[in-house]
Amino acid sequence: MATGSAANVTRIMLAVDVSTMVGYPIACISSLGAFKWAIQKIVRSNVSDFELLLLHVPSDQAFCGGDIGKIYTSPECFETMESRDHARGLHLLEYFVKRCKEIGVACQAWIVTGDPKTAICLEARRIQPDLLVMGSRALSLVYLSIGTSVSDFCLKHAECPVVRIKRRPDEAPLNPLYD
Amino acid sequence: MATGSAANVTRIMLAVDVSTMVGYPIACISSLGAFKWAIQKIVRSNVSDFELLLLHVPSDQAFCGGDIGKIYTSPECFETMESRDHARGLHLLEYFVKRCKEIGVACQAWIVTGDPKTAICLEARRIQPDLLVMGSRALSLVYLSIGTSVSDFCLKHAECPVVRIKRRPDEAPLNPLYD
Repeated sequence: MATGSAANVTRIMLAVDVSTMVGYPIACISSLGAFKWAIQKIVRSNVSDFELLLLHVPSDQAFCGGDIGKIYTSPECFETMESRDHARGLHLLEYFVKRCKEIGVACQAWIVTGDPKTAICLEARRIQPDLLVMGSRALSLVYLSIGTSVSDFCLKHAECPVVRIKRRPDEAPLNPLYD
Repeated sequence: MATGSAANVTRIMLAVDVSTMVGYPIACISSLGAFKWAIQKIVRSNVSDFELLLLHVPSDQAFCGGDIGKIYTSPECFETMESRDHARGLHLLEYFVKRCKEIGVACQAWIVTGDPKTAICLEARRIQPDLLVMGSRALSLVYLSIGTSVSDFCLKHAECPVVRIKRRPDEAPLNPLYD
């Protein structure tokens, strides 16, 4: 995956994720914002000089949204969950690949599993993009003090230039944890 | 300064600094690397769609390089120092403005005084660039643990997307503190 890029194009890696809003398995606000920023501010009309590398690392959805309160009675329950997460990931990447096609910019998209922040950094090391663009919820200091976000981790540890595009306040839903 | 930009161009702010190497008052390695990255990887051939905003904040040079061991006997010594720092800053900006002219990309350049990390963030708030590009010495964890670097501070506090371009190991001089 993400090999065989044309020589001498700027390779922008975008880590994209699904929305955390229950029953809304499309791109999250932050990913959409990061994609829009990369296209409008960096690629602009110069589509032949760029390639977007779209990576999705499904986070553990077992304790989010629709799964809260669910009773697991057999190993098959988890298999269903995994295939559902994979389908969500494919749906997500399909959206971005279609958008790239419409815009006319080359792209590659793929899914890897694992801890998102570690997987993104490992993929960045393997792929060596010119720029890694990450969305961020721009949560308040109270939220940020609880732990390190995926984008914080990647800003510190990814071995390539990283830019974090924060969600604008007017783009945020009422619950800032939703994205 | 840095006003009146053409509408609908991507405005890239670059914080540039002079070399810390004694007797070498030109751009530091990190600033040159950041400039080169912005031109080669982002602007590319699409020069009419970008504007570079080149900011220099002279850091306190009194305790660096040529001033170590100097005896200050009157207020005029400091005036000389200030005018020398200003001349260095102008020399630095002249280099980058000339490079922009050669490349064909629009630019604006200016100097502000103050604590560099705070001044850069305040200028970013005032100017609201689409991207702030900063060079970095990519010092080891030992150095980084001593304090917060200018780029660390700006990554955390600037109210715009920030990307830090680390110096490649093969670009570094023998003393990693030199830049």
